[in-house]
Amino acid sequence: MSDKLRQVALGIVPAETVLKNAKIVNVFNSTIETADIAIEEGIIAGIGNYEGRQEIDLCFSFVAPGLIDGHVHIESSMLTPSEFAKIVLPRGTTTVIADPHEIANVCGLNGIRFMLDSAKTTPLEVKIMIPSCVPATAFETSGYGLTAAEIGALKNEESILGLGEMMDYPGLLAGRTEVIRKVEAMDKGIRDGHAPGLSGHELNAYKVMGIHTDHESTTRAEIEEKIARGFYCHLREGSATRNLAALLPAVNQKNLSRLLFCTDDKHPGDIIREGHIDYNVNQAIQAGIAPIDAIRMATINTAIAYQLPLLGAIAPGYQADLIVFDSLEDIKVRDVYKRGIPVVKSGKILFETVKIRNHQVLNTIHFNPESIDLSLALKSDRIHVIGLENGNVTTSDIHASVKVKNGLYVAEENPDLWKLAVVERHHYSGRIGKALVKGFGLHQGALAMSIAHDSHNVIAIGDNDPDMLLAIKTIKGIGGGIVLVHEHDIYDYLRLEVGGIMTAND
Amino acid sequence: MSDKLRQVALGIVPAETVLKNAKIVNVFNSTIETADIAIEEGIIAGIGNYEGRQEIDLCFSFVAPGLIDGHVHIESSMLTPSEFAKIVLPRGTTTVIADPHEIANVCGLNGIRFMLDSAKTTPLEVKIMIPSCVPATAFETSGYGLTAAEIGALKNEESILGLGEMMDYPGLLAGRTEVIRKVEAMDKGIRDGHAPGLSGHELNAYKVMGIHTDHESTTRAEIEEKIARGFYCHLREGSATRNLAALLPAVNQKNLSRLLFCTDDKHPGDIIREGHIDYNVNQAIQAGIAPIDAIRMATINTAIAYQLPLLGAIAPGYQADLIVFDSLEDIKVRDVYKRGIPVVKSGKILFETVKIRNHQVLNTIHFNPESIDLSLALKSDRIHVIGLENGNVTTSDIHASVKVKNGLYVAEENPDLWKLAVVERHHYSGRIGKALVKGFGLHQGALAMSIAHDSHNVIAIGDNDPDMLLAIKTIKGIGGGIVLVHEHDIYDYLRLEVGGIMTAND
Repeated sequence: MSDKLRQVALGIVPAETVLKNAKIVNVFNSTIETADIAIEEGIIAGIGNYEGRQEIDLCFSFVAPGLIDGHVHIESSMLTPSEFAKIVLPRGTTTVIADPHEIANVCGLNGIRFMLDSAKTTPLEVKIMIPSCVPATAFETSGYGLTAAEIGALKNEESILGLGEMMDYPGLLAGRTEVIRKVEAMDKGIRDGHAPGLSGHELNAYKVMGIHTDHESTTRAEIEEKIARGFYCHLREGSATRNLAALLPAVNQKNLSRLLFCTDDKHPGDIIREGHIDYNVNQAIQAGIAPIDAIRMATINTAIAYQLPLLGAIAPGYQADLIVFDSLEDIKVRDVYKRGIPVVKSGKILFETVKIRNHQVLNTIHFNPESIDLSLALKSDRIHVIGLENGNVTTSDIHASVKVKNGLYVAEENPDLWKLAVVERHHYSGRIGKALVKGFGLHQGALAMSIAHDSHNVIAIGDNDPDMLLAIKTIKGIGGGIVLVHEHDIYDYLRLEVGGIMTAND
Repeated sequence: MSDKLRQVALGIVPAETVLKNAKIVNVFNSTIETADIAIEEGIIAGIGNYEGRQEIDLCFSFVAPGLIDGHVHIESSMLTPSEFAKIVLPRGTTTVIADPHEIANVCGLNGIRFMLDSAKTTPLEVKIMIPSCVPATAFETSGYGLTAAEIGALKNEESILGLGEMMDYPGLLAGRTEVIRKVEAMDKGIRDGHAPGLSGHELNAYKVMGIHTDHESTTRAEIEEKIARGFYCHLREGSATRNLAALLPAVNQKNLSRLLFCTDDKHPGDIIREGHIDYNVNQAIQAGIAPIDAIRMATINTAIAYQLPLLGAIAPGYQADLIVFDSLEDIKVRDVYKRGIPVVKSGKILFETVKIRNHQVLNTIHFNPESIDLSLALKSDRIHVIGLENGNVTTSDIHASVKVKNGLYVAEENPDLWKLAVVERHHYSGRIGKALVKGFGLHQGALAMSIAHDSHNVIAIGDNDPDMLLAIKTIKGIGGGIVLVHEHDIYDYLRLEVGGIMTAND
């Protein structure tokens, strides 16, 4: 405990920084209080009338606690944490509770370590939930398998808050030993859930078995049942999954303290265009939630749920993570302070990041490009085809008749179908999964990428094998990323050199 | 994790006990839900429709979580924890957060250990805050001095939640090393506050220095400021300190989650007559607080504030601490379950307690009765007298003229004043403090007792020295307690053989 902090709080010595004339959003009583905020050593020392060695007159702008994303896969931004910080801090997100599930599926513990190291170069506070489902499925090959023992070994590290979303709820409910061991290994902190549509006895069992949160609700009835059973529930608004409109009607004064905001997966373009957690807050306000209640779901509620006693409020002893804005009706973050230091001023970032060079997360595309055979052997011309639906992540099972020659599928004679190939890229196993897809929406060429949830092998789709092969080989050449091939030539590509799923570039 | 619990939750096997047709108070959404409660291994396995090996039809009675006293000195009941349990469990209190400040001032660590051991013989769950202020004052001699090192050594023990109320707020605010060391020694869990009337910069400093709660508010303005500064605030209703009426107007939907109930100090007669935390709940309901909101302040709010993840709610995974009653408007607890086991049925306790015989908390009256000299030497006949006020714990400083003979005070010539003596009883030091008191209200005789906050020496008051001496000597004879002497004979006495402040008798 610092004696300086005591003296500043008492007003005996001037504070390092005082934000004068702030309209302070108080999340403990949902009021606005006009006062000064005294900051010393990154901590809020006092609210009231204070003098500072540096005084910043806020001229009665609003100040709220820094926003917290209660559940995010940073990898979905395709940016490393240091670059991710540059787009979310200007939107007022000062802390994220991140589940590095994607990089762990590629690089295991090295990937988790990289995320922590990269985050430390920025003012963004990244708290980690250790992924519980690496690999996420037995149907494909992942880069790593994270064991219960490894989870247990990590649990006491700083920045580790608990266990990441338990997607394998069928395994947990079935009492599978290896799943239960992972839950038991994280015998401190919070265990995140992921149980879309789970209800009744199964939901009870999921809770009894040690899961504390859920962010998968898509209907009001679903989130209401999960709240009633004692889950802290995230209201998610990401890129593909946009649940706020359906869930906000469930929010009321009685259940508010159990509700949190998250993005889960949000693409960088959406973050830049719409915002991050500030977008959740503003959507809630537009839906009629009182502004301070909306802010509570983005601050103190999340801090309490995840046992972060220094975060989420503007009060003595809390970390000076602050956002400044001018209107409570439509929050446009202007300035951001992290641990008392200005990191965003008038929307412009004031910090630089260091690109962590970690060879353990580079060069992760491990397949032999010379041995790839994309030909698809078929025993019958009546086959199953994967049916895609626009704007939806679910697929349908289509029964179709296709042209087959010498036992091989003939692409040019089946123009409405595209071939899909998943090339194992972690262990040089040479394994390639193949299928046919309908409704992809492109007209000619091929697309390949090394982002393919959850094991992130190289996935490719195309209307002809040579274009697909070129796309796949180019993925190898650029060290991971996304490649578009059109008329037998590379049309465009995005390099994602970190684990094949993120870039360290701006 | 028990596989049985999983199977019960899923409804695959019948539960150990099912409470059928319960009107369940849900503290997460403040609703009443009619359903069954399935209990296995003391844990709530599920809410819904369940079958049990034992089924108890509640016929649509209400069931709420067991009540929690957020701050109590069990010693103030003059009962050991095992006997205290017998009067509070029938009122629905299933858990108390106890600060064994009084017994620690007499017996130190042995006293704390005794409280834990005694509590373990009962279904009452006693969580301990390690007393921070032993001794509480430098003005008298206590039986023990609890050091920062001893506090640090205890912090990881089961049942220890944090640091007991930091009464020495002047010492903390002044930055005194030994006080700060105690706060720093308890670097986990919660640190309770005790700061009557503290406000403004001083309140900020108290919070910054690591204090999380306060239970001393006596006015609406005081508790509102403490809520705003981030303290969890108890609304106290004890025997001497009755703050509910003044504080309840401060309660609203916006600050509810920061508010808890406590009794602090409540005499056994008051508990039996009025109730315990159920009394706080009912007073709140009568004052217009919604019944479930009142219950939240006695259950989930306290559990969250004190980081007790198994307590305070009726939901899967929570401990089956339950109270059953028939009306939400005036809660009269009928049945009580602790860890799924019925411990009170129709108001009658179903458990027996074991009297812990611990010699380290017996025979604690250590003074030599033969060497007591109660004569009061005065240098002047103009002296200071302690003025007592009826119904108040504060005193006034009265300047009075008294009769003095040969330099000694003469009791019989000063009939409106009584003599007060504090006999050191921990270390045979022979020290006796003496004073004169006005307004005590008795007419003849003497009173002595070994309860004397906070060091619990033997305090005696009387209108003549022989009666006082008889009372003091009798305290020694009975091993501690309260003695009344009238007309030179023992009129009545209460034996408090445990530390001189509690009895293990019913």
